Amino acid sequence: MLVSIIMGSDSDLPVMKEAADILKLFNIPFELTIVSAHRTPQRLFDYARGAEERGVSVIIAGAGGAAHLPGMVASITPLPVIGVPVKSSNSIDGWDSILSILQMPNGIPVATVALNAAKNAGILAASIIGAFHPQIRKAVSNYKLELENAVLQKVEKVKNEGWENQFD
Amino acid sequence: MLVSIIMGSDSDLPVMKEAADILKLFNIPFELTIVSAHRTPQRLFDYARGAEERGVSVIIAGAGGAAHLPGMVASITPLPVIGVPVKSSNSIDGWDSILSILQMPNGIPVATVALNAAKNAGILAASIIGAFHPQIRKAVSNYKLELENAVLQKVEKVKNEGWENQFD
Amino acid sequence: MLVSIIMGSDSDLPVMKEAADILKLFNIPFELTIVSAHRTPQRLFDYARGAEERGVSVIIAGAGGAAHLPGMVASITPLPVIGVPVKSSNSIDGWDSILSILQMPNGIPVATVALNAAKNAGILAASIIGAFHPQIRKAVSNYKLELENAVLQKVEKVKNEGWENQFD
Amino acid sequence: MLVSIIMGSDSDLPVMKEAADILKLFNIPFELTIVSAHRTPQRLFDYARGAEERGVSVIIAGAGGAAHLPGMVASITPLPVIGVPVKSSNSIDGWDSILSILQMPNGIPVATVALNAAKNAGILAASIIGAFHPQIRKAVSNYKLELENAVLQKVEKVKNEGWENQFD
Amino acid sequence: MLVSIIMGSDSDLPVMKEAADILKLFNIPFELTIVSAHRTPQRLFDYARGAEERGVSVIIAGAGGAAHLPGMVASITPLPVIGVPVKSSNSIDGWDSILSILQMPNGIPVATVALNAAKNAGILAASIIGAFHPQIRKAVSNYKLELENAVLQKVEKVKNEGWENQFD
Amino acid sequence: MLVSIIMGSDSDLPVMKEAADILKLFNIPFELTIVSAHRTPQRLFDYARGAEERGVSVIIAGAGGAAHLPGMVASITPLPVIGVPVKSSNSIDGWDSILSILQMPNGIPVATVALNAAKNAGILAASIIGAFHPQIRKAVSNYKLELENAVLQKVEKVKNEGWENQFD
Amino acid sequence: MLVSIIMGSDSDLPVMKEAADILKLFNIPFELTIVSAHRTPQRLFDYARGAEERGVSVIIAGAGGAAHLPGMVASITPLPVIGVPVKSSNSIDGWDSILSILQMPNGIPVATVALNAAKNAGILAASIIGAFHPQIRKAVSNYKLELENAVLQKVEKVKNEGWENQFD
Amino acid sequence: MLVSIIMGSDSDLPVMKEAADILKLFNIPFELTIVSAHRTPQRLFDYARGAEERGVSVIIAGAGGAAHLPGMVASITPLPVIGVPVKSSNSIDGWDSILSILQMPNGIPVATVALNAAKNAGILAASIIGAFHPQIRKAVSNYKLELENAVLQKVEKVKNEGWENQFD
Repeated sequence: MLVSIIMGSDSDLPVMKEAADILKLFNIPFELTIVSAHRTPQRLFDYARGAEERGVSVIIAGAGGAAHLPGMVASITPLPVIGVPVKSSNSIDGWDSILSILQMPNGIPVATVALNAAKNAGILAASIIGAFHPQIRKAVSNYKLELENAVLQKVEKVKNEGWENQFD
Repeated sequence: MLVSIIMGSDSDLPVMKEAADILKLFNIPFELTIVSAHRTPQRLFDYARGAEERGVSVIIAGAGGAAHLPGMVASITPLPVIGVPVKSSNSIDGWDSILSILQMPNGIPVATVALNAAKNAGILAASIIGAFHPQIRKAVSNYKLELENAVLQKVEKVKNEGWENQFD
Repeated sequence: MLVSIIMGSDSDLPVMKEAADILKLFNIPFELTIVSAHRTPQRLFDYARGAEERGVSVIIAGAGGAAHLPGMVASITPLPVIGVPVKSSNSIDGWDSILSILQMPNGIPVATVALNAAKNAGILAASIIGAFHPQIRKAVSNYKLELENAVLQKVEKVKNEGWENQFD
Repeated sequence: MLVSIIMGSDSDLPVMKEAADILKLFNIPFELTIVSAHRTPQRLFDYARGAEERGVSVIIAGAGGAAHLPGMVASITPLPVIGVPVKSSNSIDGWDSILSILQMPNGIPVATVALNAAKNAGILAASIIGAFHPQIRKAVSNYKLELENAVLQKVEKVKNEGWENQFD
Repeated sequence: MLVSIIMGSDSDLPVMKEAADILKLFNIPFELTIVSAHRTPQRLFDYARGAEERGVSVIIAGAGGAAHLPGMVASITPLPVIGVPVKSSNSIDGWDSILSILQMPNGIPVATVALNAAKNAGILAASIIGAFHPQIRKAVSNYKLELENAVLQKVEKVKNEGWENQFD
Repeated sequence: MLVSIIMGSDSDLPVMKEAADILKLFNIPFELTIVSAHRTPQRLFDYARGAEERGVSVIIAGAGGAAHLPGMVASITPLPVIGVPVKSSNSIDGWDSILSILQMPNGIPVATVALNAAKNAGILAASIIGAFHPQIRKAVSNYKLELENAVLQKVEKVKNEGWENQFD
Repeated sequence: MLVSIIMGSDSDLPVMKEAADILKLFNIPFELTIVSAHRTPQRLFDYARGAEERGVSVIIAGAGGAAHLPGMVASITPLPVIGVPVKSSNSIDGWDSILSILQMPNGIPVATVALNAAKNAGILAASIIGAFHPQIRKAVSNYKLELENAVLQKVEKVKNEGWENQFD
Repeated sequence: MLVSIIMGSDSDLPVMKEAADILKLFNIPFELTIVSAHRTPQRLFDYARGAEERGVSVIIAGAGGAAHLPGMVASITPLPVIGVPVKSSNSIDGWDSILSILQMPNGIPVATVALNAAKNAGILAASIIGAFHPQIRKAVSNYKLELENAVLQKVEKVKNEGWENQFD
């Protein structure tokens, strides 16, 4: 049970760290590093080829603009690849990041999450692991319960304090 | 090891059957049925809640237009949900299908694949199962090898016959 | 005559409060609370199912990103549902919010207003109530007259002071 | 209890007739005619001004391209106006129709439904009337139940016949 | 020779004043006022109907969001109407403003200029007047010559000072 | 009083002929020819420079894809230029044609009409001429009256025959 | 002087053959084959790495959807890479193909041409070679002259036969 | 071996200077000046016509909005033209700049790079020159190696310092 978090550039780290944070919360071991499809193509190949052997179960790959990292990794490994479209500085409102990760051809899927949604990539990885590890699945269930409870508490807060008093 | 394939309408079946076909190819057992988020909301709840108990590992959910099925299922179950944006007749070139499946809020990810890419949803499901079942992982590897070989054969064909003779 | 204002998150409150403000102006009673389609799916069901019984006439539901709240509520209740696409922080310029609320399938309409237009949602609710309550209809007419007068006063102001002097 | 269905051109009739069909199903009386914002501006004014007096409760207005009819009617009458963006021949994939109906300024809402969704406009009108006429509200509830049952029957059909046999 | 500059709201004035400034430069008399299609529909009608009689030759109309002012004026008057899509605060990146002004149906054209391009609307008005007033046409020619000269001076500046020294 | 209709390619003729047809209706003399900005740049220059001398009052220029013809003509002549974005075979749903004609920089406006709206370009040209030729202005008024009457006749037809009988 | 034409799939051949046809016209030697970034990643690497040694001067790479081929080749070779976005069957109106080829990060440019514009890719390759081979540059000049003459002949044809007679 | 860098306005200089900077790095001589397609059309012609004679090998042209400069230069010269879509202040999120440069008709290609990617335009120019100058080709290879090494160093940094410590 090992998740690999990779990103095309260290400038993606502020976004992608949320995947790491959530995996820590779930006590799921992970590795995190930089693999650039365009600047380190050889490393891309070696890394993607070696993942299975290293015991990686799920790969989370984030990139922006013409984002080729998730798709290229998916073309090399049989492991599930989660793609995080990053709204980087050279992206056109994120549309390029989304379309170049999502629209993979038949045979080579990438599990794409929302723009900048590295946190959700982490939860999805936990969900995938949880499909075969009941304890993690339970943790995901609990996580969703906590989300529910957090909303219910806000419901109470609005009810008790009045919505007019939520703007201080 | 059970995959659940659901779709919002029987009109999605011509697209979604490709997920079933590929799972058959991988010898992965699956159930296939119709669950409409908007027309059968109670069934949506019951189905999503019961999935874990029924032994489902991965859910593939396809829908078009304001496609709420994948996201609502993901809100109820801890299992990984793969969303297939269907370019249905009431969709605006597929943009509505894609955005209403992909752009899920923090906490509730949907693993989105390309527009109409039910085949890739099936392969992604196999990939997810393969992360914990070496035999399936091997099958996914072999499947990708076959894709590679099919291309290499076409490379030979173009080389031997000439590109000018590929249009008959 | 009761309007229900719900929103997917308390972060939508700064936008959605404008619906409450305008209903207060029209002296239309309303309830306001948080219902998250994705984080509190059970609450979504209970709330939508109970609305008719509680005497609600019109529901205003605001959400952003893959915004499923208005559509899911509309799938459960026979009451008219007004959807407010919120340009939340995780939204792609609001396109996802708009399309996932507007593009509902046949059978389950949502009365969608402009991006972030909670004020207009409130006026539309008044308009709907006014269709069967002459006093409220009169109030809506008066409100539009006031809008007209406000413009006419600005017309006078520009005329008297000159357009060059409107920039101080 | 009278609904007014108007459209910018007789070329919108094949789309807009679905609103009429559904209102007949609900036994809701309606009038249907052509009002062009751009070709008959005087008629637009007279029609919108006279609606309240004629006893109209809800107006359904469909138009395509730079679609000004729903918004202009809404600017003149206090009644609720449902806008149907029509994907007419001169429309750019429907985006112009949608945006010029949906994005109304503060003060003048239009209850917009999906592209070409005249059927949903009719159901929304019924829903609005139903908010104050329990019998119509009951009819809307029943209509949604029938939608649910139709899906459940298809669920049975797929279950009994197998999904492979749904393509003849 | 009289140009009428109208806008949907006084919030459009910072954009629309550029039309006035350029007309002053060309010594073309103009009137400037506020006419809201949605808030003052009666005034819209009266204003558009009276323009020809008042001796107006060209109308410049600016509006944002679901911008109906230019098109509605064009539906009432035989005079040429120049539309300025304003990127107002409630606009979706200007797309709604552009499409609801540009995409007019057959019979009722609006001469649309670029987003926020009130200056160009003024120059276009001068160009239209110039088509029949040689002196104004000459002034437009001279204006374009000045634009050319301004660029040529910058060419010289870059040449003499070096491009590296243009950033102080 | 002479209008020049030019287009980038003879493949634009089926669209652009509607401008010629409407000018014939208005008895406005016109010339029609092909001027390609990209294939005949010298001709573009000579043509645009000679227009004023030849007595042209208004230029209508149609082009598709990266449509530079209208803008380049406008950069050379002081005459008003009406741009028709043509949805040619190499266009991306017309967006490229629209944006490359509409979004001209300050100083060089193009009066853009709707996608493929050569008919409206012709009417706009008549409208521009009519601003200074009362007879043509009267003809434009009459043309709009005829449009109005045509709609009113359809109103009668629907009223007399019933909307259900308009589909034979 | 050797051009390499590659494409992601043999289904791209009907589009990409136009590059080959135009290079034949210019008597520029070329090789043409299939290289799939996603299905034959190893071949992608070997091919891109070997291009320089094989004497290739310019690479033309066409692909559709999440099109990674041009960018990945550009990441491996120092040669100029021309990218052709193909509007393949799985593409969303070509937007995915364009953005995933065009929006390359700093350091790794791809010379992108218009959607499906393989012919222009061939001309651009000739132009690039012509920058250093006067004979090819002369051929490109002549080709553009022929384009000009073809238009001028159509100008004559329209002039002599009348535009009304171009529709038989 | 001479590169020409031109731009439509001096306001494009902060973007376009990156092309100059990178050419200096490669020791490739270049000229840099302003040529406005719309404000200095005669200069555009003269400049484009004279480029070949002046010994220019590659032209880099940057412009924003309805960006006609790259395409018009390409229509006049047989030299390869690299287009840089600039996201200028009057651009709609860059879409107009991109489409009016990229979507050139058959016969007149422009080698388009990413939005604002003047640096990549410079590298592409080096790559084009390198296709026929081994020394420059070698320099491009080295440049890409340096990019690779910079990433590998960051890989080490993250590995040694931990990703948690990259945010100070």
